[in-house]
Amino acid sequence: MASNQEEVKLFGMRGSPFVTRVDIALKLKGIEYEYVEEKLGNFSETLIKYNPVYKKVPVLVHNGKPISESLVILEYIDETWKQNPILPSDPYKRALARFWSNFIDDKYLGAVRKASSSLDEKEREESFKEIEVAFQFLENELKEKYFGGEEIGIVDITGVFIAFWFPVIQEATGLKLFTSDKFPKLYKWSEDFNNHPIVKEQLPQRETLLAFFKARFESLVASK
Amino acid sequence: MASNQEEVKLFGMRGSPFVTRVDIALKLKGIEYEYVEEKLGNFSETLIKYNPVYKKVPVLVHNGKPISESLVILEYIDETWKQNPILPSDPYKRALARFWSNFIDDKYLGAVRKASSSLDEKEREESFKEIEVAFQFLENELKEKYFGGEEIGIVDITGVFIAFWFPVIQEATGLKLFTSDKFPKLYKWSEDFNNHPIVKEQLPQRETLLAFFKARFESLVASK
Repeated sequence: MASNQEEVKLFGMRGSPFVTRVDIALKLKGIEYEYVEEKLGNFSETLIKYNPVYKKVPVLVHNGKPISESLVILEYIDETWKQNPILPSDPYKRALARFWSNFIDDKYLGAVRKASSSLDEKEREESFKEIEVAFQFLENELKEKYFGGEEIGIVDITGVFIAFWFPVIQEATGLKLFTSDKFPKLYKWSEDFNNHPIVKEQLPQRETLLAFFKARFESLVASK
Repeated sequence: MASNQEEVKLFGMRGSPFVTRVDIALKLKGIEYEYVEEKLGNFSETLIKYNPVYKKVPVLVHNGKPISESLVILEYIDETWKQNPILPSDPYKRALARFWSNFIDDKYLGAVRKASSSLDEKEREESFKEIEVAFQFLENELKEKYFGGEEIGIVDITGVFIAFWFPVIQEATGLKLFTSDKFPKLYKWSEDFNNHPIVKEQLPQRETLLAFFKARFESLVASK
């Protein structure tokens, strides 16, 4: 499908798991693209023009046409470039893949957001429980090497936050919610996923991310 | 595709816009199905078994296989029964349709939930503004008779709450956020949509719904 006329641009921010989702999908498909780095709090006029509704990254621009929202972008990529599919072909399996991708975005990330923004101790404890319940659902759902089977699929890609970001946040904050004792299959999955040759290349520097979250956590504790 | 062996069941609740989305899509496709009414606060064991994650309606069960979450169900229906498509065939148009369906679910309904649950006057005023901003985005996006073009598509179906439920809630509460003066195209769309022969048959009784929201609003005001 790729031709010389094709222009693919990704507007993103290094360190964003939502942007990394798109990087991974494009690389899995073998698509050449130009990456444009945006700055938080100082987005370019071009970015705002392309995503006037949410004014955020990632935005994929394909031959001048912008697409926002990472899960919408992943489906677009899969429908536009057919090689190395990230969604199954069977409608029922596709529905399950969408269900679990949405689950990670809504239920799991919702609980993580609650945990990181709540100032109320009891509410934070509740959100930790919600995170563990979400991990348990995913642990039960994981039947093969990846959620996508033997190859990486949309649920794995959506879960990049779980595989890479969450363990870093745990280390920065001293939390122990996601461990190999509690969720052995999911933990093994996170290691396999992070070490997948294409994924590995797209992940940010672990040490840089760890330093960022440590500083953020310390300033939170200090401001209490 | 429909054969005598095919079994399609919808677990729902009359009065739920999320269930009505699925009703409309199945009827547009001409699919015969059995409707099973669930009771809020007393869901059947079968429903819980089919949707252990969210424990809510709608759940579509096709030949014994359950699918939850209304937008996931709509995509499943469109992929399983090809007649009268509710998503466009072009990948970019499909991406836009998904973007706007998600927008209605997240941004618009998020603001409506905030408005109906907030006890803080200032927060309520903010949510009213967010609702109006969302209406304006949809007003700008509407280019033809329906969001789907000349025929009803997934964005229209997702928007059933806007077309039917919201005007009833306005009448019950005295709000005037969605009017033909402010949003002429969207208002006209809501009338066309509600009067579409297939949609019309799936909508709940307006008077019953109005009485429900009036009672709810009065009890809210009384409890202040």
